[in-house]
Amino acid sequence: MSKQERAARTRNTLIHSAAELFERHGYVKASLDEISSGAGVSRGALHFHFANKAAVADAVETAAALSLRRAADDAGLLQVNALQALVDLSHALAHLLHREVVVRAGFQLNCDAGLHTDLSLRRQWQRCVQRLVARAAREKALATGVSQERFVALVVAATTGLEVLNRGDRNWLSHYSLTGFWQLLLPAVAAQRALGELDPSGSNAVRDGTPSTAGHHAPVIDAQPR
Amino acid sequence: MSKQERAARTRNTLIHSAAELFERHGYVKASLDEISSGAGVSRGALHFHFANKAAVADAVETAAALSLRRAADDAGLLQVNALQALVDLSHALAHLLHREVVVRAGFQLNCDAGLHTDLSLRRQWQRCVQRLVARAAREKALATGVSQERFVALVVAATTGLEVLNRGDRNWLSHYSLTGFWQLLLPAVAAQRALGELDPSGSNAVRDGTPSTAGHHAPVIDAQPR
Repeated sequence: MSKQERAARTRNTLIHSAAELFERHGYVKASLDEISSGAGVSRGALHFHFANKAAVADAVETAAALSLRRAADDAGLLQVNALQALVDLSHALAHLLHREVVVRAGFQLNCDAGLHTDLSLRRQWQRCVQRLVARAAREKALATGVSQERFVALVVAATTGLEVLNRGDRNWLSHYSLTGFWQLLLPAVAAQRALGELDPSGSNAVRDGTPSTAGHHAPVIDAQPR
Repeated sequence: MSKQERAARTRNTLIHSAAELFERHGYVKASLDEISSGAGVSRGALHFHFANKAAVADAVETAAALSLRRAADDAGLLQVNALQALVDLSHALAHLLHREVVVRAGFQLNCDAGLHTDLSLRRQWQRCVQRLVARAAREKALATGVSQERFVALVVAATTGLEVLNRGDRNWLSHYSLTGFWQLLLPAVAAQRALGELDPSGSNAVRDGTPSTAGHHAPVIDAQPR
């Protein structure tokens, strides 16, 4: 392994350790000593990568944003149908939140009182939903009279709430719960013609957890997370 | 003013001061010195009422729970129709979150990482929604095939998300936004017969902000918040 690879690996381990501590104790209580010892490196090694705790938090959020962007790219690529892509993406986000502590911590940092980073994962998620809903409108897949703005607001509010509630009880973002959410919502927002083609439980590609293998994706959300 | 009244007033002022600091800096960063000086009392006076910061946080949450319970009682009393009561209650909660720092801080304490109080405002809100939806089902006001469980989950998730998002931008819980939420959702969940009678913007009693003047209310949610 080259020196550069070792440095990148250490940096990732530090981000992971920080995410675990931020999730467990919150940003304010997590200390740099705990973060470095959690990563099995010295405090000096931590400072080689990060100037302070805010820089670590920033790196956690950036890593979470990258995961979210990849999931959005995959959902957009795999689905020609924008509404199905939105459903799939919500399932992908739930998967990420269940499996990746960095994604959980990233969203949680956005919620901690008194902490403001440059990046807003929530805003990134909102833009993501907005683009897919706008695409669904262009595809004439929305029911007559459904306001894009309202639909976006409902999806963003509900998914934000599910993420917050899921911290206390993981059933909130289970595949069952999220499927139920879409079963209730899709008939209210999708055009009759489009409804028959939609699978509220996510299309196969997402359900099986098989990521896209395509080398290059047309980004669905901002290419630059900040 | 009797000694007892003065003590009660001081206690309330301390709760208000704590709520402001919890909202601004988060629970961990808020100090007992700031809380007492914000209330214009000595640190000794604070300790007469509260053993420690956790006890103050507990009092903030309990006060928030009481406000929520009163709003739920009012909505339940003023409306014979359970679905309209649910709509009205959501508008009342939005009002409370806009106007009362104690209610905002109470919900925020529920979200802070690493802080666990006995009381869960979120759970109280959920029970509240559950009861009104169950009543709507008994009134045969739900559309055929609508699962109570799913409807409750969607309302709880969306309102939780709106509360969290509203911290960064107060438009999330504006009267306009909340009305839009119900305009989109009600046609999906309400029986055709019931739909005509529902006002997504809240019934007059709630919109005017006139509280119930009845002396005693049948509680819609738990009489004891804990």
